[in-house]
Amino acid sequence: MSDKKKKPSKLKARLPRGFADRSAADIRATDEMVAKIRTVFERYGFDPVETPAFEYTDALGKFLPDQDRPNEGVFSLQDDDEQWMSLRYDLTAPLARHVAQNINEIALPYRTYRQGWVFRNEKPGPGRFRQFMQFDADTVGAPGVQADAEMAMMMADTMEALGIARGDYVIRVNNRKVLDGVMEAIGVTDEGQKLAVLRAIDKLDRLGIDGVRELLGAGRRDESGDFTPGAGLDEEQIKALVGLSKSTVSIKSYDLSTKPGQQAAATTLMPNTMFDFDVNALLENEVFALGIEELSEIRRILFAAGYGPDRIRIDPSVVRGLEYYTGPVYEAELLFDVVNEKGETVQFGSVGGGGRYDGLVKRFTGQDVPATGFSIGVSRLMTALKNLGQLGTEEVVAPVLVTVMDGDTEALGRYQKMTQALREAGIRAEMYQGNFKKFGNQLRYADRRGCPIAIIQGSDERAAGKIQIKDMIEGRKEAAAIESNEEYRAARPGQFEIDEADLVAEVQKLLAAQRDG
Amino acid sequence: MSDKKKKPSKLKARLPRGFADRSAADIRATDEMVAKIRTVFERYGFDPVETPAFEYTDALGKFLPDQDRPNEGVFSLQDDDEQWMSLRYDLTAPLARHVAQNINEIALPYRTYRQGWVFRNEKPGPGRFRQFMQFDADTVGAPGVQADAEMAMMMADTMEALGIARGDYVIRVNNRKVLDGVMEAIGVTDEGQKLAVLRAIDKLDRLGIDGVRELLGAGRRDESGDFTPGAGLDEEQIKALVGLSKSTVSIKSYDLSTKPGQQAAATTLMPNTMFDFDVNALLENEVFALGIEELSEIRRILFAAGYGPDRIRIDPSVVRGLEYYTGPVYEAELLFDVVNEKGETVQFGSVGGGGRYDGLVKRFTGQDVPATGFSIGVSRLMTALKNLGQLGTEEVVAPVLVTVMDGDTEALGRYQKMTQALREAGIRAEMYQGNFKKFGNQLRYADRRGCPIAIIQGSDERAAGKIQIKDMIEGRKEAAAIESNEEYRAARPGQFEIDEADLVAEVQKLLAAQRDG
Repeated sequence: MSDKKKKPSKLKARLPRGFADRSAADIRATDEMVAKIRTVFERYGFDPVETPAFEYTDALGKFLPDQDRPNEGVFSLQDDDEQWMSLRYDLTAPLARHVAQNINEIALPYRTYRQGWVFRNEKPGPGRFRQFMQFDADTVGAPGVQADAEMAMMMADTMEALGIARGDYVIRVNNRKVLDGVMEAIGVTDEGQKLAVLRAIDKLDRLGIDGVRELLGAGRRDESGDFTPGAGLDEEQIKALVGLSKSTVSIKSYDLSTKPGQQAAATTLMPNTMFDFDVNALLENEVFALGIEELSEIRRILFAAGYGPDRIRIDPSVVRGLEYYTGPVYEAELLFDVVNEKGETVQFGSVGGGGRYDGLVKRFTGQDVPATGFSIGVSRLMTALKNLGQLGTEEVVAPVLVTVMDGDTEALGRYQKMTQALREAGIRAEMYQGNFKKFGNQLRYADRRGCPIAIIQGSDERAAGKIQIKDMIEGRKEAAAIESNEEYRAARPGQFEIDEADLVAEVQKLLAAQRDG
Repeated sequence: MSDKKKKPSKLKARLPRGFADRSAADIRATDEMVAKIRTVFERYGFDPVETPAFEYTDALGKFLPDQDRPNEGVFSLQDDDEQWMSLRYDLTAPLARHVAQNINEIALPYRTYRQGWVFRNEKPGPGRFRQFMQFDADTVGAPGVQADAEMAMMMADTMEALGIARGDYVIRVNNRKVLDGVMEAIGVTDEGQKLAVLRAIDKLDRLGIDGVRELLGAGRRDESGDFTPGAGLDEEQIKALVGLSKSTVSIKSYDLSTKPGQQAAATTLMPNTMFDFDVNALLENEVFALGIEELSEIRRILFAAGYGPDRIRIDPSVVRGLEYYTGPVYEAELLFDVVNEKGETVQFGSVGGGGRYDGLVKRFTGQDVPATGFSIGVSRLMTALKNLGQLGTEEVVAPVLVTVMDGDTEALGRYQKMTQALREAGIRAEMYQGNFKKFGNQLRYADRRGCPIAIIQGSDERAAGKIQIKDMIEGRKEAAAIESNEEYRAARPGQFEIDEADLVAEVQKLLAAQRDG
């Protein structure tokens, strides 16, 4: 046993950077939101499955957008047998491990959803946290693009189930094969360089077109002085990807209404698309052509199921930052305006997304296990719903406060019994647990807590079999000035007396009146 | 950009030791249980508040029972500014940090609850996990033992709300001051030694009386050969704590029905008590006498509120392993028998507990902020409820499966549309997402998944505006032998044909019939 010395120095109470506490309002709003999402996922035939916070580092793989940061974006530590473990940075890589580990017991296709905290060892900033909640759905063992189409539909249904009006959101769908084909055509073949290109383009929303051009080329120094190395493309290659001659982003896309072989000339279909290349020339490239064909098939399945471009659109600017996607990718974007931390009016933007990851399970099993799924950023979506007034509309009523006038054991037992009687009738109730001697403090507590009713019984009332009921909503203002139990006993602002036996009934009556008032 | 080499070697899919995945049944059972617990806590006037997984290591403190293990029982890592962070090992220490950090905004008493994962860097074993879920409630800013009494009552109410019958559980209450007084009286004053004594006694359930004696003395070597150093007490001191002359645990306790000054001789009140000392002699000790007085007051408050020893009992063998408790401690114990992993019939035992921790917030603020609270071990309690048949009684119905007979884009769109129509009517439904070509695989999938109904439409039915509905509960056995789509089309076991327009209505009718059947 080591000797212990008491430290006289005071500790500073503070959270590590990039972590946050959650308030009652946030927790209740999250629960409400998550319940609605879960209902949609269940209706689509998905069942819950969860994995723990830790995985072996090699099982997670290195698929994060920011893997060039210290510790490669994940929190890692060595177990006592020297193996490296990491906290999961998403819910997809652990699911792939789970499926591979149980591949003989699992019936494919395996349709599951999960809610959980994920961790990123990134530089924290305003609104950027190192622990955040994701809500994912995945179909594992689904080779066809109909599974990707279903994911896009389920995202759209989820947005509407949460009260986001059609037109206030859009699900944007692209295909990694399209960009892979473009890169192949312009001679970007090194895997590291391809990844750098994907990540550069994925930052369009945050950095704008000039920032993306820097990241495609030599690299970019941010406002804090940190330097991110670029993909090292030459001017010709950058030009093939980005419309150089325009001050704004070029607006071009594909017409997917016809078969790939009859691909029409690129037409102006949607905004915010940065690519400026000749689609017809690129169709010579096999990977590109396959990507376009898959998008075309998704589009027609969506059309047949009644999901038009007012809900789901093909949009070639969607990239998604994670490395493991191999085919269709999709993103849920909220279109209404908000004011950002710089005071600018901007579209709310992405609240989640995903894509096909045919290679993740194969890392373990060696055999093809095609899969597709998406992830919702729970905190971000909650912020959006609060903006829309779609959450927390039902106020939780604070408890009835049973005040303490006398502190002897017998009296405390009586107050406790009153409190229990209210609770047994289903009424939220608590007995005052602080120092009871300053009665004004008890009423101030009830006030700050938003208690609807305070119950009061001194020794006089006790002797007469009576209880004082105080309507806090009526009497809130008058009470603040009263300090002592004696003064309070004289003034009695906004309260009435009842028989002790009627406590529960009278409280129920008053609560109902307050609710209706 | 670094060059990346593809690794041809296959990864092994495995979880780090001491971590586990959660199945759909476990998640649903946990959610059901947690909702019931939350209802009780809300009725008692508690509100949710949560903290993140990480805290600064110094903010968490070193209060774990197993702090002599490597890394002192917690998972820790260094942040990029060199500060040490740890994953929380419980929900109490982080709450103290949260209160201290927001002390100017928080209205005391502060009554909150929280559900969350905690992490212990311990040696994993059967049923011992390194990540587990706790559900806590705390009242911060509550100096009186009425707050401790309330906690014990709330634990009892929680057990009953979960369907655990009175008599199948008991809340046992003790006071750290009682044992502190005993230790003072027998000359154990070193803080490290006192802690070692507490932890030795806390292991009575797991190690038995002989194991505890070893830990009170020189130390103990476990079955795996690991050695735990002991508290270093001499024989006289051990004898004062443990009834040496008996082969079983001695059965003595206090009579708390009278005032401390009139303390009667120790009487046989309850089983499983290991102490064998003279209560009347110890009442000379101030700390011991104060502990007994507090227990006596708790007992009378409980009695007044109607909670007798059939629900809550004073029991001096309760210790609790965490170092930060300063006064009353309490434990919820399940009394029914289960068979343990060694095949022995034992009482289920503890599913949670807590106590008063008046010093935790003071570490930060320097001023007294008395507090009390408890923690429920969610997984352990869930295991208990499953044993009692109190969870997961409501089966979730698996989705209706819309099978895929034809794989062209147009047909896929049609199947998707049927699936959507079912979902819009609130029916769980999914379209088959695997390789559709072997129809037998689709029905085997429906069978393994427990799908109640399969929907089938080939091109013939399509032309005639018809759909085949297959009652899987009726037809489950016949279908397993069928391999090809062609063979299936001929046999059609246990199915009937409907008009395409009646799909939703017919499925609803069949689901209702299955539910009632």
